[in-house]
Amino acid sequence: MTFANPIIEAGIAGLIALYDQRAVTPVEATQAYLARIERLGGPLNAYTSVDEDGALSAARASAERWAAGEPLSGIDGVPIAIKGNIAVKGMPLHAGIGAHRGRIATEDAACIAALREAGAVILGMLNMHEGAVGATTDNEAFGKAHNPYAQGLTAGGSSGGSGSAVAAGLCAGALGTDTLGSVRIPASFCGVVGHKPTQGLISMDGVVALSWTLDHVGVLARSAQDCAYLLAHAAAVDGDLAESFSQIADLDALRPAPFAALDLAPFGDIIDPELVTAYDAAIAAARDLGLDIETISLEGYDFNAMMQHGYLIMTAEGAVSLEDDLASGPEGFSAVGRQTFGWGAAQPAANLAKAYRAVGVSVDLLKDLLTPYAALLLPTTPGPAFSFDSGGLAHVADFTALGDFLGMPSCAAPIGVTKTGLPLSIQALAWDDETALSLADLVSNAAELTPTPQAFRG
Amino acid sequence: MTFANPIIEAGIAGLIALYDQRAVTPVEATQAYLARIERLGGPLNAYTSVDEDGALSAARASAERWAAGEPLSGIDGVPIAIKGNIAVKGMPLHAGIGAHRGRIATEDAACIAALREAGAVILGMLNMHEGAVGATTDNEAFGKAHNPYAQGLTAGGSSGGSGSAVAAGLCAGALGTDTLGSVRIPASFCGVVGHKPTQGLISMDGVVALSWTLDHVGVLARSAQDCAYLLAHAAAVDGDLAESFSQIADLDALRPAPFAALDLAPFGDIIDPELVTAYDAAIAAARDLGLDIETISLEGYDFNAMMQHGYLIMTAEGAVSLEDDLASGPEGFSAVGRQTFGWGAAQPAANLAKAYRAVGVSVDLLKDLLTPYAALLLPTTPGPAFSFDSGGLAHVADFTALGDFLGMPSCAAPIGVTKTGLPLSIQALAWDDETALSLADLVSNAAELTPTPQAFRG
Repeated sequence: MTFANPIIEAGIAGLIALYDQRAVTPVEATQAYLARIERLGGPLNAYTSVDEDGALSAARASAERWAAGEPLSGIDGVPIAIKGNIAVKGMPLHAGIGAHRGRIATEDAACIAALREAGAVILGMLNMHEGAVGATTDNEAFGKAHNPYAQGLTAGGSSGGSGSAVAAGLCAGALGTDTLGSVRIPASFCGVVGHKPTQGLISMDGVVALSWTLDHVGVLARSAQDCAYLLAHAAAVDGDLAESFSQIADLDALRPAPFAALDLAPFGDIIDPELVTAYDAAIAAARDLGLDIETISLEGYDFNAMMQHGYLIMTAEGAVSLEDDLASGPEGFSAVGRQTFGWGAAQPAANLAKAYRAVGVSVDLLKDLLTPYAALLLPTTPGPAFSFDSGGLAHVADFTALGDFLGMPSCAAPIGVTKTGLPLSIQALAWDDETALSLADLVSNAAELTPTPQAFRG
Repeated sequence: MTFANPIIEAGIAGLIALYDQRAVTPVEATQAYLARIERLGGPLNAYTSVDEDGALSAARASAERWAAGEPLSGIDGVPIAIKGNIAVKGMPLHAGIGAHRGRIATEDAACIAALREAGAVILGMLNMHEGAVGATTDNEAFGKAHNPYAQGLTAGGSSGGSGSAVAAGLCAGALGTDTLGSVRIPASFCGVVGHKPTQGLISMDGVVALSWTLDHVGVLARSAQDCAYLLAHAAAVDGDLAESFSQIADLDALRPAPFAALDLAPFGDIIDPELVTAYDAAIAAARDLGLDIETISLEGYDFNAMMQHGYLIMTAEGAVSLEDDLASGPEGFSAVGRQTFGWGAAQPAANLAKAYRAVGVSVDLLKDLLTPYAALLLPTTPGPAFSFDSGGLAHVADFTALGDFLGMPSCAAPIGVTKTGLPLSIQALAWDDETALSLADLVSNAAELTPTPQAFRG
């Protein structure tokens, strides 16, 4: 990224170095982010509320700890922002649903409590797709979350506010949630790194549930290393795992097994040709760095049919998760939202039974197919961000859903931009979080194109 | 049991002892069973087909092995019978469905192949509830399977033919399947031992699926030890596990942890008072033998609500399992069968999602509640067998369904009879098969009442 302000440019890892050198204080960093939100954030509509007082108060406490040489953790004093479906005590827990506009969280979600214990500064709550059930964040109640690369294009979803805020430098990192791709799709469209961890690594306690079988909490930041720091503290990992997240992308550690890259030839009609070019170039560059990458197809796995099964599971479970709200205050949902959950709730049980079975069968199949490989590279979305007026992108979650079915970590990272300057993204799906993060980082860096949205560089 | 013919009375373990002593040959035993089926089996309608030639041929081969002192296993030459939904090469694989009357299995199911390798003699195929989806075996296409204790009473279901044939001495043991109680309900009504093993211990390969999440293959015989022999060979276990099944009911081995017995007080309105008396007496007798048994309630587990959830899962998955048959030949099902599967298929997906979630939550709850105990004793059915004309027994599967949800082994065994002479049954649900079998055996024997149907003693 290339932000003019070095505090913003620093990201998470850089900011900690600046704190450690006493070059910047957490109060200065927090003020810098708050000022940017104020100056640049309006049109993006990434935030639904900003907690200036709370953030500055947390920053002052952090500054005292750094001054005393006793920071709580490697992210003490780092300003982050939180998706609207994760409970932050005293802040709105709206989940993108109009009916929940006035709902204030009375407790922190487990991941928020963990981040506070690590000293993180919470700037505010982020916009999201209504109920986390779609990929546009075209939210009737809270407004559209725009893409920093072009006003009028979607930031993706459902964690659209997270992608937009991270890409525009309105926070150093953000939390999101991912059920069929909701962390990775906005990461793809906004040109940032979005990591969906191993299912359950970050606790779902205190997060508004959509699909209890597929939901994950994930992280978005401007680099895989920054994602790793945020993940380590949101998940409150310790010991060897914490150590493994402290320094990702050790090429030697990545070399023992061959890697796989999905053959895109069978997807010619659904993938943007510019993405194919960038994808091929990124893999070629990674091979030049010495990675052993085999091109494979996942024979027997039907990406679109499985995404459809996932969609039924998500909407049927979502209708149950939100049952009381849908029954008592249907007017608090958009017409599309009511229709979406109503559709899921009312589908024939036989179809849902088939969907669960298909997921179980696919998980076994995919694990067998992936066993010879340390990780799988594949596109994140089939193309770049689209206009809110365009009606969406077909197959938008086809390549992300399998990571949720598998519960395996998958990290999306940018690998360049289209001719019109829109980010393109690759995913690394692996057996462990460190490998996914490291491989995504390496391939992304090998592509030598880490975009920054022009309008937000200043 | 008290059959006049010592070959029939011997059961599985006794028969092997007789073979070993050269007192009886497998041909004599098989002829004795075939003669009984011919003489007594008609009214019961437990068998849908008998394979006299195949059985005698297998018996002759077994006799040669015993004569040579080289039996294949501990059940070589033992005559058994198989539920109609388990593939026996060359025999009808009807699954109780009229449409499948002429379907001949072209391969053995995995458990049948294992039993043949152990030398078992297969007498024939058994009647069952249509599609294994009910508890009466009041089968429109294949006729009612009657209870050996009283013509006109159900043998239970769905493995009604299995329960009836074992109780009447028409086979030494039988295979059944159990989704919400289909092995244990007929065992209860027919006064035999029915064991639903750990899920997957006996392979489902080659068994007509009903519910892929809840189906189990199980065994029925006249004693827990006989069930253990049959289980060991149907599951093709070896090593320590085979050893553990060779001598069950070691009281000392059962003593390390306390056992639990379900408090029946909250179920006063649904449980037959005669069953409560027999249950209390059986537990008191087991305590007198030195077992440490605590009376507990499973707070938070709603037996009937969970059975209803299980019923929706079973019928919805069943509708998918049988989808092609229901679509191409609906007239091959009874009106009730079509209605049952049609109902399951068409229920709102939200209800099925809730059902799966409730099962997941209950499994966690029950495992927590049961952790302090080596096993749980509870009733099998809420009362004895009922008349086909009575419309059924409410709550018939309430006490069996949890064993299927948990996938934990559960063994049903008789603990006496009603004043009118109908068997009553207790279940032992445990963490491992040996404990379930051993405890059921011990409690059943302590009750000092192992019934034999009067009409079939001769």
